[in-house]
Amino acid sequence: MPQNLTGSSLIAGQQVPGTGRTVHGHNPATGEQLEPGYTLIDESQLSQATAAAAEAYPSFSTLEPEAHASFLESIAANIEAVGQELAARVMAETGLPEARVTMERGRTVNQLRLFASVVRAGDFRGVRWDPAIPDRTPLPRPDIRQRRIPLGPVAVFGASNFPLAFSVAGGDTASALAAGCPVVFKAHNAHPGTSEIVGQAITQAVADADLHPGVFSLIYGPGASIGQALASDPAITAVGFTGSRAAGVSLMQAAAAREVPIPVYAEMSSINPVFFFPGVLEKNDDDVAALAQAYITSVTGSSGQLCTQPGLVFVPSGTAGDRFVTAVGEAAAQVEGQTMLTASICQSWKQGVEQLAAQTGVELVGRGAEGPHDNAPAPAVYQASAEQFRNNPVLHEEIFGAASLVIRYDSPADLAEATQRLEGQLTATIHVAESDYAQAAPLVPLLEQKAGRILANGWPTGVEVNHAMVHGGPFPATSDSRTTSVGTLAIERFLRPVAYQNLPEELLPEPVKADNPWNLNRRIDGDLQLES
Amino acid sequence: MPQNLTGSSLIAGQQVPGTGRTVHGHNPATGEQLEPGYTLIDESQLSQATAAAAEAYPSFSTLEPEAHASFLESIAANIEAVGQELAARVMAETGLPEARVTMERGRTVNQLRLFASVVRAGDFRGVRWDPAIPDRTPLPRPDIRQRRIPLGPVAVFGASNFPLAFSVAGGDTASALAAGCPVVFKAHNAHPGTSEIVGQAITQAVADADLHPGVFSLIYGPGASIGQALASDPAITAVGFTGSRAAGVSLMQAAAAREVPIPVYAEMSSINPVFFFPGVLEKNDDDVAALAQAYITSVTGSSGQLCTQPGLVFVPSGTAGDRFVTAVGEAAAQVEGQTMLTASICQSWKQGVEQLAAQTGVELVGRGAEGPHDNAPAPAVYQASAEQFRNNPVLHEEIFGAASLVIRYDSPADLAEATQRLEGQLTATIHVAESDYAQAAPLVPLLEQKAGRILANGWPTGVEVNHAMVHGGPFPATSDSRTTSVGTLAIERFLRPVAYQNLPEELLPEPVKADNPWNLNRRIDGDLQLES
Repeated sequence: MPQNLTGSSLIAGQQVPGTGRTVHGHNPATGEQLEPGYTLIDESQLSQATAAAAEAYPSFSTLEPEAHASFLESIAANIEAVGQELAARVMAETGLPEARVTMERGRTVNQLRLFASVVRAGDFRGVRWDPAIPDRTPLPRPDIRQRRIPLGPVAVFGASNFPLAFSVAGGDTASALAAGCPVVFKAHNAHPGTSEIVGQAITQAVADADLHPGVFSLIYGPGASIGQALASDPAITAVGFTGSRAAGVSLMQAAAAREVPIPVYAEMSSINPVFFFPGVLEKNDDDVAALAQAYITSVTGSSGQLCTQPGLVFVPSGTAGDRFVTAVGEAAAQVEGQTMLTASICQSWKQGVEQLAAQTGVELVGRGAEGPHDNAPAPAVYQASAEQFRNNPVLHEEIFGAASLVIRYDSPADLAEATQRLEGQLTATIHVAESDYAQAAPLVPLLEQKAGRILANGWPTGVEVNHAMVHGGPFPATSDSRTTSVGTLAIERFLRPVAYQNLPEELLPEPVKADNPWNLNRRIDGDLQLES
Repeated sequence: MPQNLTGSSLIAGQQVPGTGRTVHGHNPATGEQLEPGYTLIDESQLSQATAAAAEAYPSFSTLEPEAHASFLESIAANIEAVGQELAARVMAETGLPEARVTMERGRTVNQLRLFASVVRAGDFRGVRWDPAIPDRTPLPRPDIRQRRIPLGPVAVFGASNFPLAFSVAGGDTASALAAGCPVVFKAHNAHPGTSEIVGQAITQAVADADLHPGVFSLIYGPGASIGQALASDPAITAVGFTGSRAAGVSLMQAAAAREVPIPVYAEMSSINPVFFFPGVLEKNDDDVAALAQAYITSVTGSSGQLCTQPGLVFVPSGTAGDRFVTAVGEAAAQVEGQTMLTASICQSWKQGVEQLAAQTGVELVGRGAEGPHDNAPAPAVYQASAEQFRNNPVLHEEIFGAASLVIRYDSPADLAEATQRLEGQLTATIHVAESDYAQAAPLVPLLEQKAGRILANGWPTGVEVNHAMVHGGPFPATSDSRTTSVGTLAIERFLRPVAYQNLPEELLPEPVKADNPWNLNRRIDGDLQLES
């Protein structure tokens, strides 16, 4: 057990042992119980965290940009400084392979640094200014300025499948802190030690920057009940969540039932349809095999436990499609099961696959080898017809893990019709050759209605963290299609506009002072004016 | 009765008589029933409107900017072309005076033209582009572009108190149409003829621009039930509403309970606190009288039926405050009651004032004269102490109409404490002299937490429609503090981002094509780049 793990929540800089039961992380490959045990807090302890976050808000929300950006960079540096101990703990708690963990740590620190650059640039403050026109008739035009302020303390829930990039210092935390919102983070109980290591890194950054300690708290609590309490806490002004549809919907309901409702940004459920047009399969055998291999890699990477895993792939009927599906089966057969995150996730996957396999007309395309233990099941790909997809809602359900369903279709009209039956998705992908463009063009606007990101000739796994990314989409992919949880646009989730009318310069906040001390780009009388 | 009023809903360009009961407008000054009667539609007729809106979406949402902007301008021109007939009908149905109606018509057509300029500029499309880096290691960086698309058909509910600017062609309709969303408009039954005249103007503009007729429908229906049905209709993707807290909350609940929840933008309830600091009352008697007069003008204009009417005014105790309050009483006594919008609004106002007057410690400051009829009650101003305000929730309630409550406070600490007890507000106003700045400065961040707009040395009524305005604020002022219902930022309510990864140019929508055919400002690798 790492020397510095305490098994306690970190509330506003203090180690706070919980009054509730103790949970442990487990090595999903071996079942081994990992020390230390983590004591779960109760609701009164939760209130300490939310009250401290509310206390931290006035100073943190008005932090000068350079100090604010440096704070985010300092979190990144502290995470890197932990070194191998962190990677080892992630691997022990999640079963994820080292290369993936290294990649994910890189993504986590890079997105903190990306948000630091966003804080320095300051466009997210949304400054607008319509200057006074004193001699306007019949009434003088007042001076009105606008900027966006941070909403307030944000509750963030860690995802099981990204113990770093969607967990304690992940995208929701980074974007909320970048917006100027204190964060109360509910650890995922499947990787408590990883969470504590990262929580310590943030806590240290808060202390080093001399910020109010309530800027960040990490809590361990009983999942559903503390989640509801956190989303219902009057000090909390927004919720970020990545996880199951059931849990996300229950947070949405709790937030809507509050005396003062708050926004919930929940990323939940997606099967990420992929559409092969006929022309793209007119390749030589090697290229078709490579395409099939890329599909299987996307299905089985991270044991399929990715929000954007391609769970549904439309392939034309006929010879070219048959050849591709055969190649998919061959590629699948080469893969060995990898360790899943937890025994219960594995159990759900097995049930989902069993249910799918039992549906009328669903056939096995290919299955890999069982992994080295029960918790590493054999990946599998199935197929069914477009008609079966149309008529059987079971074929629309997400199976979280390394499984995928090929749908064989007869005409592009089938694709439009199938798309209209889909629920909201994070991604939708088309595979097209130039000869397919005319047929694919009408599908693109339909896909826009169903997904947050549309890809061509690639696979949806592997989400870039940049300015243009959308990791969002219509319900149930997310609770709020107007936003993204990955990329710099995510900061806008935690802001709201305030206008100032005829306020004396002395009383205006820095971002809207006339002499623009923060060098912000501004919209003056509607026109963007860039600084520097 | 105007020649061209039909008493029917206007569904996708067609006059559709309702199958339900008939309602009439009434002249609130005389009680006279106004012809024609309007037949209310049922839910199957409602579905015609929402289905037509969904059909109109694909073409309307992708309309080329110049055609889109011209369409909005054509609505404005058509409204102006109706001329005196419209003003006469508004006055007959609402009792509002001619000057107010003329002003409101100007605001309505100006905001349509302002949104036309927003459509031409195109910044609301939010274009972002992170170009490909093919030689990035270990993996090539894909090309990712982002733009915002219109959500889909929007349901808008007309407000009673702005029969033009917050009604059929008002701010919600203008911003939704500008975003590219078809609109299904539920008329307010208190001004059905006004609604039909404006609805015809929009319908004509739709036809003249050769748009799909489902771009706009105007429906008359039984308030609560058709409202719930509209907010629950699967084709509807967002709701705009201005009205009572009870009705707004019921729409929020209906939208949250849908299979696919949708955003509700409801502007509901606000008492618009005003804070006088001591220094500002150190004026000569004439200036104090002018200040008192300005207060009473803001309280009583439009019979007080404005969302931003100052219902709560904090005045320091002591001699200077006494002198001001006396002047307020004198100014109030000079005012005569004006016609209220409807008998039921007047009745609610009377009940609210009676309840307020009956509270312990509440005293009359001044009362005007009764108006020429029952529906034009005497404006009234009351006062109470800060302690009474602290302890009695009745003193926090909105009274919609010409009444206001002065709270006498002892120290600036009272103001901070009172602010923290306030619910969310559309506006908060400070009256300050330079000598007050030091005391006022700490209040400003507290007011930011409670209001969407902060004013100094003015009155909150009279909302500018421009780029920097925020007509919004925390619940219950609105259902969603992240937005505004007035000003150009309002367009953002009806959009969501979509990303395109490695799509061939041939399949990309116009706004994100590399050669930028719409000349849009774009964020390239995170940096704003302005076009012309």
